[in-house]
Amino acid sequence: MRTSEEYRTSLRKMKKNVYIDGKLVERDDPILVPSTNVLAKTFDLVDDPEFKGLITARSHLTGIEINRFTHVNQNAEDLLKKQELIRRACHLTGGCIQRCMGCDAINALSLITYEVDKSYGTDYHKRFQKYLEYFQKEDLTAAMAQTDVKGDRSLRPHQQKDPDLYVRVVERRSDGIVVRGAKNHITMAPNADEIICVPTRAMTENDVDWAVAFALPADAEGIKLITHVANPRPRKYLKAPMSEFGVADSFVIFDDVFVPWDRVFLCGEWPFAGLLAHAAGGLYHRHSYCGCKPAVTDLVMGAMALTADYQGVENKPHIRSKLADLACVAELVYAAGIAAAVTGEKHPSGNFVPNLVYVNVGRRHAGVNIYHELETLTDVAGGLPATLPFEGDFSNPETGAYLEKYLKRREGVSTENIHRCFRMLSEMLCSALGGVWAVAGVHGGGSPIMEEILIHLSYDFNAKKKLVKHLAGIKD
Amino acid sequence: MRTSEEYRTSLRKMKKNVYIDGKLVERDDPILVPSTNVLAKTFDLVDDPEFKGLITARSHLTGIEINRFTHVNQNAEDLLKKQELIRRACHLTGGCIQRCMGCDAINALSLITYEVDKSYGTDYHKRFQKYLEYFQKEDLTAAMAQTDVKGDRSLRPHQQKDPDLYVRVVERRSDGIVVRGAKNHITMAPNADEIICVPTRAMTENDVDWAVAFALPADAEGIKLITHVANPRPRKYLKAPMSEFGVADSFVIFDDVFVPWDRVFLCGEWPFAGLLAHAAGGLYHRHSYCGCKPAVTDLVMGAMALTADYQGVENKPHIRSKLADLACVAELVYAAGIAAAVTGEKHPSGNFVPNLVYVNVGRRHAGVNIYHELETLTDVAGGLPATLPFEGDFSNPETGAYLEKYLKRREGVSTENIHRCFRMLSEMLCSALGGVWAVAGVHGGGSPIMEEILIHLSYDFNAKKKLVKHLAGIKD
Amino acid sequence: MRTSEEYRTSLRKMKKNVYIDGKLVERDDPILVPSTNVLAKTFDLVDDPEFKGLITARSHLTGIEINRFTHVNQNAEDLLKKQELIRRACHLTGGCIQRCMGCDAINALSLITYEVDKSYGTDYHKRFQKYLEYFQKEDLTAAMAQTDVKGDRSLRPHQQKDPDLYVRVVERRSDGIVVRGAKNHITMAPNADEIICVPTRAMTENDVDWAVAFALPADAEGIKLITHVANPRPRKYLKAPMSEFGVADSFVIFDDVFVPWDRVFLCGEWPFAGLLAHAAGGLYHRHSYCGCKPAVTDLVMGAMALTADYQGVENKPHIRSKLADLACVAELVYAAGIAAAVTGEKHPSGNFVPNLVYVNVGRRHAGVNIYHELETLTDVAGGLPATLPFEGDFSNPETGAYLEKYLKRREGVSTENIHRCFRMLSEMLCSALGGVWAVAGVHGGGSPIMEEILIHLSYDFNAKKKLVKHLAGIKD
Amino acid sequence: MRTSEEYRTSLRKMKKNVYIDGKLVERDDPILVPSTNVLAKTFDLVDDPEFKGLITARSHLTGIEINRFTHVNQNAEDLLKKQELIRRACHLTGGCIQRCMGCDAINALSLITYEVDKSYGTDYHKRFQKYLEYFQKEDLTAAMAQTDVKGDRSLRPHQQKDPDLYVRVVERRSDGIVVRGAKNHITMAPNADEIICVPTRAMTENDVDWAVAFALPADAEGIKLITHVANPRPRKYLKAPMSEFGVADSFVIFDDVFVPWDRVFLCGEWPFAGLLAHAAGGLYHRHSYCGCKPAVTDLVMGAMALTADYQGVENKPHIRSKLADLACVAELVYAAGIAAAVTGEKHPSGNFVPNLVYVNVGRRHAGVNIYHELETLTDVAGGLPATLPFEGDFSNPETGAYLEKYLKRREGVSTENIHRCFRMLSEMLCSALGGVWAVAGVHGGGSPIMEEILIHLSYDFNAKKKLVKHLAGIKD
Repeated sequence: MRTSEEYRTSLRKMKKNVYIDGKLVERDDPILVPSTNVLAKTFDLVDDPEFKGLITARSHLTGIEINRFTHVNQNAEDLLKKQELIRRACHLTGGCIQRCMGCDAINALSLITYEVDKSYGTDYHKRFQKYLEYFQKEDLTAAMAQTDVKGDRSLRPHQQKDPDLYVRVVERRSDGIVVRGAKNHITMAPNADEIICVPTRAMTENDVDWAVAFALPADAEGIKLITHVANPRPRKYLKAPMSEFGVADSFVIFDDVFVPWDRVFLCGEWPFAGLLAHAAGGLYHRHSYCGCKPAVTDLVMGAMALTADYQGVENKPHIRSKLADLACVAELVYAAGIAAAVTGEKHPSGNFVPNLVYVNVGRRHAGVNIYHELETLTDVAGGLPATLPFEGDFSNPETGAYLEKYLKRREGVSTENIHRCFRMLSEMLCSALGGVWAVAGVHGGGSPIMEEILIHLSYDFNAKKKLVKHLAGIKD
Repeated sequence: MRTSEEYRTSLRKMKKNVYIDGKLVERDDPILVPSTNVLAKTFDLVDDPEFKGLITARSHLTGIEINRFTHVNQNAEDLLKKQELIRRACHLTGGCIQRCMGCDAINALSLITYEVDKSYGTDYHKRFQKYLEYFQKEDLTAAMAQTDVKGDRSLRPHQQKDPDLYVRVVERRSDGIVVRGAKNHITMAPNADEIICVPTRAMTENDVDWAVAFALPADAEGIKLITHVANPRPRKYLKAPMSEFGVADSFVIFDDVFVPWDRVFLCGEWPFAGLLAHAAGGLYHRHSYCGCKPAVTDLVMGAMALTADYQGVENKPHIRSKLADLACVAELVYAAGIAAAVTGEKHPSGNFVPNLVYVNVGRRHAGVNIYHELETLTDVAGGLPATLPFEGDFSNPETGAYLEKYLKRREGVSTENIHRCFRMLSEMLCSALGGVWAVAGVHGGGSPIMEEILIHLSYDFNAKKKLVKHLAGIKD
Repeated sequence: MRTSEEYRTSLRKMKKNVYIDGKLVERDDPILVPSTNVLAKTFDLVDDPEFKGLITARSHLTGIEINRFTHVNQNAEDLLKKQELIRRACHLTGGCIQRCMGCDAINALSLITYEVDKSYGTDYHKRFQKYLEYFQKEDLTAAMAQTDVKGDRSLRPHQQKDPDLYVRVVERRSDGIVVRGAKNHITMAPNADEIICVPTRAMTENDVDWAVAFALPADAEGIKLITHVANPRPRKYLKAPMSEFGVADSFVIFDDVFVPWDRVFLCGEWPFAGLLAHAAGGLYHRHSYCGCKPAVTDLVMGAMALTADYQGVENKPHIRSKLADLACVAELVYAAGIAAAVTGEKHPSGNFVPNLVYVNVGRRHAGVNIYHELETLTDVAGGLPATLPFEGDFSNPETGAYLEKYLKRREGVSTENIHRCFRMLSEMLCSALGGVWAVAGVHGGGSPIMEEILIHLSYDFNAKKKLVKHLAGIKD
Repeated sequence: MRTSEEYRTSLRKMKKNVYIDGKLVERDDPILVPSTNVLAKTFDLVDDPEFKGLITARSHLTGIEINRFTHVNQNAEDLLKKQELIRRACHLTGGCIQRCMGCDAINALSLITYEVDKSYGTDYHKRFQKYLEYFQKEDLTAAMAQTDVKGDRSLRPHQQKDPDLYVRVVERRSDGIVVRGAKNHITMAPNADEIICVPTRAMTENDVDWAVAFALPADAEGIKLITHVANPRPRKYLKAPMSEFGVADSFVIFDDVFVPWDRVFLCGEWPFAGLLAHAAGGLYHRHSYCGCKPAVTDLVMGAMALTADYQGVENKPHIRSKLADLACVAELVYAAGIAAAVTGEKHPSGNFVPNLVYVNVGRRHAGVNIYHELETLTDVAGGLPATLPFEGDFSNPETGAYLEKYLKRREGVSTENIHRCFRMLSEMLCSALGGVWAVAGVHGGGSPIMEEILIHLSYDFNAKKKLVKHLAGIKD
């Protein structure tokens, strides 16, 4: 397994194809450090005794010890460990660990390539396993590029005026394929070694060229990463771990990019495009969300409890009720992940597949609660997160003395700690990063409406009708 | 194991102590048949192949096959099976199977008597096991009598002006004790063989006489059951299974009732009163609710899907979204029960103890959603559940012809089925029984506020504070 | 103005056409007394000094003093008084005063007949004013029959397989028209002197025969009232005003009913069918709801405050917060009614027209809160409304003594009052009438979705887009 | 009346006492321009024909035409106009017009000084009227400094360890008083000519020195403004009005500041401290919120409609439903303001006093909905507000061409407009300013809990209890 330093060195060696605010930047540009720090944490945890047994797994291909983020889940225990790993790692990085994306992509590909081969007699699964062995051995990170830009939302890929609005195969050659198009909202693209591209939706027989999946180095010829960065506000004086972690999301442009066959995992088998889309985003990734979203709630809960403590009201009934309410959100989502694992199924490919219904009810519950959680935190925190003076006024001796005197809360809490607490709240509630966090809480990994769609795919509402027909004495 | 007929015969033989609307009635009085039918179902299911392996278990005391409702859970599998049994049995009886109460009481007593003995050197656990063997062999049903009438809610038992407002020991004799007081909201008391009495709250050293638990035949000398009955509306013409099941709740009066020592399971060991109260109501019974409440939601969901189907709108987006929303309620609660089982722990007594946090977040989620579910159902059903003509107008040829003509919905659905569907909705939404169902959905087995209290007992909010302190750089 | 006794006498003289549960009954049948009592109250209030200036108005046609429920609103003051009258009258009858329906129908007809005449050169308005003069002079009550049975909800009237599924003209004669069809959910039809029939939706040029409005005596030849009755539970011992008031809703069948021309107010002018539907249900009736719905909330609030008081917790913060929450529901709805009145407009017909947006936001807010209100009340009341022993057990000396002892709440409250309080809660939360009340709270006078539709008709969302376009610098 | 240029010039001439991030800055420092622009708008509107009759009023003291923001409301019409003015002005500045604060302060002082004089025989009202005349003539702006820093929230002012944690009189002199303490969250303090200081809560007889109100120039000797600024993100290329408006909030430090008697309006009359606090924050300012909060919702609604339009889904049922939902929030709050005005009362001081209940239910409804509104907007907008590439990538020809191609939505909308739309959404949902806007939506002018407290002060819950007692037949 790599060290974080080796990971950073690899990034540094990659070709420049990251664009930020009009400039082409190196991958170790300071603006990318906070997001790279998140991924780096997944390498550092290998040496953290508290993550022993969690952060690593044994490869089912080679038997060697690997980073769990490169592992294909083999049993319920694997899923439970992944979920716990994600929750606990997210605690350290402020709510997102990012590397799950690539992990979820390889799990989905492992499952679906097997199925495609069974139907089409192709050899994608073997190809994929070879790629996976390499992925595990090199201890790689990957961004999963799924969401197409989609143009007119009411049209299918082949109906779009511009056929490139979904990523597609523009040429098939003896040595590989050429792809064109763009994916957007692609988290960690500029921090990743690889980009794994999968379809975003079900396709029809007219969408053959759009039924494509593949993996490429993130700096492959023709790939451009137009990147939005959300970093924490820089701290001048009040250093804190939370100000070290950020997130980068890219428009990933594929400008006629060549993919050799051994990295192509779907190419034209349109009936499997939807299955792969669901397996990647709707199944494995939503199981991961059942780990990270409780971590987000843990942090909101912690911030609320700490603020209430500093204000001297932690044991007031309304605070206790709000804390319990947040605990319920966190644990219902986590319980859904657990239930998904223990009611999951072993697939002939060797994959262990979480229960589709539970991962979706879990992710949806997180998604419909995130703004409510922030509202609760705001409610308890009061107005200070919005009006807290800047750091410089605390360090300026003249104004600092006033703030020292007038920011006092309950006995026994230093003004510095009150300051630290509210600066954190300000970051959570009144910053660009906080806003990105909220939007991602709704839409990241699939909006609540997407979960409802997948629930309808797999939930037997007719069985419920039968129950009441029996009770009502209805026969048909 | 008994047949339902044997069970009914036992009831018939019991002494008359059931009062309904001013009259002393037999236990087979027609007014009690609908509630007895629910319990009877738990005997009939033993012969139902669809419940094979679910409805029975093997006694850990005797090794013989017993009804699962008399079983003390030994492992996670037991809890998962109990939960599934309850959900599926509740589908058949309209949302409540009732017999879980006694089962939860014996599980709690098995656990806590062991602990009391360890602290006090008493022999309650042995006594209890003997009772349990009898309970299992005779295949008994028991009402758990927990909720005291409580008088002034701001005072502890010993502080009440009338000391009887919590059930208490009024005399200790060589052969047993004499108890006095009353419990209220006691479901199935007039349908039960036994009444198992446990404390409703934590006690202090001044409440020694109120720290008492015991089991008695439901017709023991001095017990009076003042009973409220909620039965479905009688059907004149439109017979339906749902109109066969009701519920009876009693004020259970203990008017100086003698309890022999071998049926006394706590008597004065006040530090264990609260633990027993929590184990009975807050732990095992709430795990049972993680089975029955999803069944209630299943029925609401089924009724909604059926109505939407008959109206021709089942596939409209807003209906699909509402159905998914209900599925999420059901499955989050059920997932919490699963998570509680698989993260539960084996206790030295042999008991398998579900996770306290998960059972409480599960039960609470059901409790805070029940009115929302009914609102959703009302929303989809329209006004007809409130204004549906009575059965007689359907059978009267003159008016029946009009209703046949004017009640038409979409093609292919007979007016009788529409009639049956809306009569069911009328029962669910506009009847005494429906109202009882809603109130029980909030308060039965513990109101949401009780779950919040237990979550606070067991959830580590300080750990959450530590997470954010680290991120904020706060050291203390 | 009539006395309530004269009103009852008129009902008694009407032809028998009311069917309840298969039987043809007189209008003074005991089963109809509770619903008739509600209407009777509107006659009695004329002599109540507390309603002086509210319950009467001066006719704009004749200048004589009339019951306000027969008045056509002439100015904002009229609307404000009507709203206040309804709120206060509903306090006395348990949440619904019923007679507003007919009042809203005549207001709508007064408005729309004027408009039809302007477009078509017809003389409906004059006819209608003659009818109105009669209506006011005779001090009549009218049920507004609006909601058609509608058959397949996806088809327009003329597209239905059975053309009678919307009320229609089947014959035009020199002396009048013949109508056929059925309306359902028609409140107070068996308690009314007259039935005023108006369209339920907008029509197209193919729906000419369905664009019809008229008034008839409720016992006109060919009208049949198949009636559902929701009465309070009869009290044996514990007499209380609330148990005197109920509601009756009918399927109103028009089996080829003749309507003379002077009682026809729309006949074929299809572009006005929708306008009349909106004016009746969506405008005037929803303004009335801005009076009655706050009254419902007042009663829920009062019941909650009283229960909390009797339990000794009225001043606990969580109770105070819940009370304030209910006060907000009541007063926002009421404020919407006030705003609708003071921003209303004088119409050339003389009518004063409330603001369409405000009446709809008001009614909708009530509709989306009613189940939440009941949930809140349940939350505070605890389980007793569902398990309260029957009256007979209170009067039976043996069990009565136990209940006297064990039902005690805080010092200073008699057990009888506790009993009365919880019997009321039981009626509100766990009875057929309570359920009907809840369903009516959602759907009566238009479901929330209907209000959303009318808001879209009248609210300028494009103006809002312009505001943000300006801010965003978007020019098009 | 002043021009905005004259207003800016006055600011420029003031003494430097504004501290931002450790530096003492001029009032025309670029960092303060966006917040000053908001106030400047209130001067410019005087010449805007669309605001004719709204932005000005006639002084009841001098009869001259004045800016309505300096006017003391004399009748319901004044309140209605103020409310409309605020809503429409807020549309132009992005949701807050700020100048209402000072206006609400003078209205409260006008009312309460009259009452104090009546009780104490003082001459505050005359003093105040003289000040008001000056205020109107000079067309001044004022920040209302109300919220004390409060230290330990469980202690009253005189109980605090540090007596300065509420602003207090430290010296009474023949020519005036000397005050010490700090107020926080004081919006527009660095943009204001004057600071009007009023109490934040009710006081007791031990809090005499803390019962103080006064007005001072914002740069008076001893005042320091430690200021937090929330400005929109600077635009490099995509100029837009919304990026010109921001907000500044200060810790206002009173470091032994001298106030001459003619500017002291309360000094020791402790029973009126609470009344003044309520009149300023709880009455007049909440009526102003019934104007600005609907404007905020208008903008959210407009942004949602525009985004949906650009995505081609504006007419989908779920979008229509969400739009109607937001319209209901806006219009219920606005209706509450209207109802408060038309049910308000003329006070002997000449003031017209809005209805306390309605202003509080209105403000609360806005406060409990703001996060829900943002959630709805996020739901419709999708993830792009969080991941939109920076402006530089649009202007860079290489990446700009990709974005032009791949950002396409429905036909007929230019990419620039899509870009503008999502940049606006990004500002609303994912920026420091957006977060401040959300927090202010909850807490600005009083958190929902504060409204609940005032509702309890003025709402007659006992009257509601009487209603149900009558219905239940309870006599006491």
